[in-house]
Amino acid sequence: MSKKAALFDDDRAGAIYRTAAKMIYEKGFDATSMNEIAEAVQLTKPGLYYYVKGKKELLFSIMSFAMDLLDAEVVAVAKEQSDALERLRAIVRCHAWLLTQATGAIAILIDETRGLSDEQRVRITERKRAYIDFIRETLDRLRAEGRMRPVDTTTATFSLLGQIMWLARWFQEAGRMSREQVVDDVAEIALGGVLTDEAQAGAPSSAALPEAIPA
Amino acid sequence: MSKKAALFDDDRAGAIYRTAAKMIYEKGFDATSMNEIAEAVQLTKPGLYYYVKGKKELLFSIMSFAMDLLDAEVVAVAKEQSDALERLRAIVRCHAWLLTQATGAIAILIDETRGLSDEQRVRITERKRAYIDFIRETLDRLRAEGRMRPVDTTTATFSLLGQIMWLARWFQEAGRMSREQVVDDVAEIALGGVLTDEAQAGAPSSAALPEAIPA
Repeated sequence: MSKKAALFDDDRAGAIYRTAAKMIYEKGFDATSMNEIAEAVQLTKPGLYYYVKGKKELLFSIMSFAMDLLDAEVVAVAKEQSDALERLRAIVRCHAWLLTQATGAIAILIDETRGLSDEQRVRITERKRAYIDFIRETLDRLRAEGRMRPVDTTTATFSLLGQIMWLARWFQEAGRMSREQVVDDVAEIALGGVLTDEAQAGAPSSAALPEAIPA
Repeated sequence: MSKKAALFDDDRAGAIYRTAAKMIYEKGFDATSMNEIAEAVQLTKPGLYYYVKGKKELLFSIMSFAMDLLDAEVVAVAKEQSDALERLRAIVRCHAWLLTQATGAIAILIDETRGLSDEQRVRITERKRAYIDFIRETLDRLRAEGRMRPVDTTTATFSLLGQIMWLARWFQEAGRMSREQVVDDVAEIALGGVLTDEAQAGAPSSAALPEAIPA
């Protein structure tokens, strides 16, 4: 995956976005200075400006980074699965896996589009909408195949998203449960909520999909 | 319910909290002035101060109001159900119903505890924890009765909460779906995700619980 490779060619940018997102989430955007961010990522201020044009651009860069990660680590992996049920399972597992990494604050920040320019807000909103459509289309296919509960696919899409996105708020890396356990359980609950009993019973277990969770 | 009655004795306070929450959510806490809030709720500034001691108190008042609503409209109603499955159904339905009312912004604001004093933060966190424990205890009972999927009850608790809380971000009152439809589907998905097939198949339909959704 060339896109993924490009993303991680320079992980310094990713580290800056993760750290800045955490600080902005904890202190607020206005209260977080570029000086403090530079200090936290152990860069001089000019060093930081090599990666980030300015504080105004930072929020947009963080959100774009979040959407890049989602495309590379969730959408691209899920699209490898042609079966709708396996595609849905890959979406849930990969997205949950991503959110139990150090990207939690980034995920929470993605809804704070207040600080963006109109043009930036439109671009982020379009990318979010494309992801939502991707999930809904997968559910529409399951519906057409008679494998979905009799519920609205839009409601189901946002129910799945809420469940996954909430992980960023409660999952603690140092908690009693491992990332793998939590991802397994979230996937079981998420699929159980939208699939018919028969569809779920007939589906191969998650063990058949080791590639859905990157090592 | 005397608590509920007291809450709505003076709905003006509730209207102020709802409006202020929406403004704070859209503009940010620092950018929202007491003058603007007074104007939006059609009160003079002294009139507004009759209800709210000051801007610093406002955030805590809004959060306390949200927890009061949750206690009166969700926990109290759910406790009337002694059966664990019916109790869980009442929690999901009543909480979802509450969030599809004009309380969405309040629900989103409840996580922005940054503006609170330490003492206030502790009080709100304790009340949130009590609610989380209430859901988890209900799931623990279902687990003991063999009616739950083999998933961790903490993970299941937060999966349910994420699904419900996310409603505040996506449900649109003027959308194509009615509040009732959305609450029905959210409950079907939420219960389907945590219950065994047998437990769900054997449970009475939601039609048997009209009191779970207040008119």
